[in-house]
Amino acid sequence: MANIKEIAKLAGVSVSTVSRVLNNHPYVSEEKRARVLATMKQLKYARNMNAVHLITGRTMNIAIMLPFINHAYFSLLMEGAGQEALAASYRLILCQTGYAQDKEVEVLEMLRNREIDGIIILSSAVTPEQIEAYCPYGPIVCCLDAGERLFSSIYINHAEAFRRAMHYLIDRGHRRIGFTVGRLDSPSTRARKAAYEEVLEEIGEPSREEWILDGCIDLEDGAAIMDRLTEMEERPSALLVTGDHVAAGLIYEAEKRGLSIPRELAVIGFDNQPIGKMLGLTTIDNRLLDMGAEAFKIVYAHIQGERKDPVRKELPFELIERSSV
Amino acid sequence: MANIKEIAKLAGVSVSTVSRVLNNHPYVSEEKRARVLATMKQLKYARNMNAVHLITGRTMNIAIMLPFINHAYFSLLMEGAGQEALAASYRLILCQTGYAQDKEVEVLEMLRNREIDGIIILSSAVTPEQIEAYCPYGPIVCCLDAGERLFSSIYINHAEAFRRAMHYLIDRGHRRIGFTVGRLDSPSTRARKAAYEEVLEEIGEPSREEWILDGCIDLEDGAAIMDRLTEMEERPSALLVTGDHVAAGLIYEAEKRGLSIPRELAVIGFDNQPIGKMLGLTTIDNRLLDMGAEAFKIVYAHIQGERKDPVRKELPFELIERSSV
Repeated sequence: MANIKEIAKLAGVSVSTVSRVLNNHPYVSEEKRARVLATMKQLKYARNMNAVHLITGRTMNIAIMLPFINHAYFSLLMEGAGQEALAASYRLILCQTGYAQDKEVEVLEMLRNREIDGIIILSSAVTPEQIEAYCPYGPIVCCLDAGERLFSSIYINHAEAFRRAMHYLIDRGHRRIGFTVGRLDSPSTRARKAAYEEVLEEIGEPSREEWILDGCIDLEDGAAIMDRLTEMEERPSALLVTGDHVAAGLIYEAEKRGLSIPRELAVIGFDNQPIGKMLGLTTIDNRLLDMGAEAFKIVYAHIQGERKDPVRKELPFELIERSSV
Repeated sequence: MANIKEIAKLAGVSVSTVSRVLNNHPYVSEEKRARVLATMKQLKYARNMNAVHLITGRTMNIAIMLPFINHAYFSLLMEGAGQEALAASYRLILCQTGYAQDKEVEVLEMLRNREIDGIIILSSAVTPEQIEAYCPYGPIVCCLDAGERLFSSIYINHAEAFRRAMHYLIDRGHRRIGFTVGRLDSPSTRARKAAYEEVLEEIGEPSREEWILDGCIDLEDGAAIMDRLTEMEERPSALLVTGDHVAAGLIYEAEKRGLSIPRELAVIGFDNQPIGKMLGLTTIDNRLLDMGAEAFKIVYAHIQGERKDPVRKELPFELIERSSV
């Protein structure tokens, strides 16, 4: 591999002229610039970008930490971040963790080791305190509300969205309400469960553990909800389903079995995915595309030095009325 | 930031001992190793991984070039590659290009600039010749058959899959067959179109340009096919739909309008996505998860020096019979 001394010698210019050409410095004559570029091409010169990163202190890489790649929720968030990254000429490093804490810590360590300029956390199992320990090394943003922290948050208020959906159902005569979640022990599930119990207490209904259905992640889990409903002695008249794909599986299976939606079971989804629109699903739009885009912009503003303090920003959700309630 | 000289001084060991600890060299006593690690912690020492990469010549990063993130086809391929990357402690750099050739060339340049160890191309607009120009700089694999090239390919035979699906329809009495594609000018579309015309010629049917429906990418495009069918003077009795999400949109809209599937319109999908399974869609499983995994393994084997020559590997597809034909 040629180095800049060889290029200088062959092009008949000084080493500092070659350096100026490499760094797009204005004070080089067009004639010399052309000669240097031609020589670089002739010698098949390639810059080692790791060396450039070492000097500039920037990698132009941002890690995106997520448990699973192949899931519509994360795809929308990634798409939002990806569009902004493309515009800013930044690259996203896809760090799939499967919620394994050691893999998540490896991603945080990348920031400490200066392999990346920042981190966007879509969902994780590590604690906010573990994340905070890495804040001195660069900007980190989480796509959920972790409270006042050293890192930034961009989120919708899951508890408020749940309350809104519950009241929408109650206003239409429902009192027996259940809900589905992906993981029982996640922070957003805890927020939703608290809101659920609060609203039920307001209307004098007991909270029914058997109507909280966990492990609902995708279409097939949604279809399987029908079996769980069939086995119940008393069924809820309405379900909040966290994820339009889960809701779609449920609706499709319900129709197949002749259970009328919304007459026998009202359903509200979350995420506003295209499949929900197709099925006439009433849903909470939690602005995933915008959230991904905002997450990138927050990290980027920190890298550019335009921001110093962590951002904590709530995006407004929207209830989209269709025909499933 | 502390350097290894300072660590050596404070820990009371030589610089080469610190270096051995950093590189997990076996010939360091446990006592000295513990002392060095404690001192590193005390001084908040962090390795600059860009410097490490500069020395080792490895970045542990592989770029994944794709046009769109938020699409079920690419999600499955990414998931397959992501699982293997996780197991190998490699990271995937997500390079969303929107089929813009200048963005695709930027990704190829990353290989030349040694920012990555290899590239997995899921789909691209650049020519095979453009890709070949970067093969001297590291391993590249494409998820389509580009012929005998300097880079590797992992693929299913799209033409053969199309012929198989056509014959399946013909065996069940269909002669008026149409098909949908995403982009008319892609290499896989050209292969499919050639197979389509070939099979029609075999059975003495003319190829009908108006039955080749392009711009069909997602659920909503699938639903919109119904309008296009309604406007036709003569309609095909069967459609090959490249993408189960497109087929799902079509089936759902057809049912809504009272068009009986398969009696009035037979449909074969491609990809074997969960939504197709739910809808009873007959489909060609083109092994996307395996293809993503194999793509990673090929690049990885080259990086590890276990392979020298480019690989050209065809994965067998499978026709999955359900109830839409």
